[in-house]
Amino acid sequence: MSLVLDAAAQNLLFREARTANTFTDEPVTDEQVQAIYDLVKYGPTSMNQSPLRVTLVRSPEARERLVQHMSEGNKPKTAAAPLVAILSADNEFHEELPRLFPHFPQAKDMFAADRLVREKNAALNAALQAAYFIVGVRAAGLAAGPMTGGDLEGIRKEFLDDDHTPLMVVNIGRPGQDAWFPRSPRLEYGQVVTTV
Amino acid sequence: MSLVLDAAAQNLLFREARTANTFTDEPVTDEQVQAIYDLVKYGPTSMNQSPLRVTLVRSPEARERLVQHMSEGNKPKTAAAPLVAILSADNEFHEELPRLFPHFPQAKDMFAADRLVREKNAALNAALQAAYFIVGVRAAGLAAGPMTGGDLEGIRKEFLDDDHTPLMVVNIGRPGQDAWFPRSPRLEYGQVVTTV
Repeated sequence: MSLVLDAAAQNLLFREARTANTFTDEPVTDEQVQAIYDLVKYGPTSMNQSPLRVTLVRSPEARERLVQHMSEGNKPKTAAAPLVAILSADNEFHEELPRLFPHFPQAKDMFAADRLVREKNAALNAALQAAYFIVGVRAAGLAAGPMTGGDLEGIRKEFLDDDHTPLMVVNIGRPGQDAWFPRSPRLEYGQVVTTV
Repeated sequence: MSLVLDAAAQNLLFREARTANTFTDEPVTDEQVQAIYDLVKYGPTSMNQSPLRVTLVRSPEARERLVQHMSEGNKPKTAAAPLVAILSADNEFHEELPRLFPHFPQAKDMFAADRLVREKNAALNAALQAAYFIVGVRAAGLAAGPMTGGDLEGIRKEFLDDDHTPLMVVNIGRPGQDAWFPRSPRLEYGQVVTTV
């Protein structure tokens, strides 16, 4: 066996973890979200850019506004999940670089001139952090239900601003009844990994 | 403590894991890469798109060609790492959807008409999978050294084709002497997570 990670952790994070479509009523607390963040904040990003931002949609009024922007198939679970989070990329992440990447003081200036370069970096690195966040939700014993099906531009206008680009919406909670479909096939190793 | 994941696994994957800049000579085997893939292939993507492709650069001749495309600061470690992988997004991922997402046979057609939509989906979901891959490298007891500093378009032309977009290059191996800098600060919870 080539893995060092213990089998229980493998199961919790990957092998038995599934995208949940239904949830129990058990609330997800701010303490749980903080514990998730305090674990996954260490996941690497380019130059420690750390552009991921998380908007927890807790008020019933905000939840209702969010549901309106989701695709039809995603509306019921977005309405029902114990907690819903909007994950977005901060395109002004470079403002934090003097603190986040202190051994290279020019880092902020490298990004100051070109918004498109910032958007590209923020999109890639916030996506890496979104994946770490999903892994972290599972590390807390919860199920994640990441969704890209919705009007992300509408969500931006409703909840964020021009400097933030939403990547996905994630339902979070304990899985409920019939929480998932049978697992779909994955590509074979040889279809994904080639050697030169 | 709000996390279910055991402390050893938290340390292995996030708290003590670091981006390595130097490596020992110990080889990374295909069996290790296969074990990593067979764990992280289960990480979720939109509609199970699974667009990540991995090119292992094993021959000395290919390694030399790759090094030429890396930024100056990344050349020595790319030359020295036991294994180097190019992670890319397959923009023709929709061809696999009939197998990967069998309960929605129209999935492939949804993406057939619009290359730009495919590129956007592939970029996001391959980035999620790149993060799962980095976590998987750590799960194998190895260190990852992900790098975006280089001529990615040159790498595409050298190693891939028009249908693949490189996201990053990852050095893989056991950490060597002085493998990392002191860890840089992370953003506070309140700078990242807000509630509405």
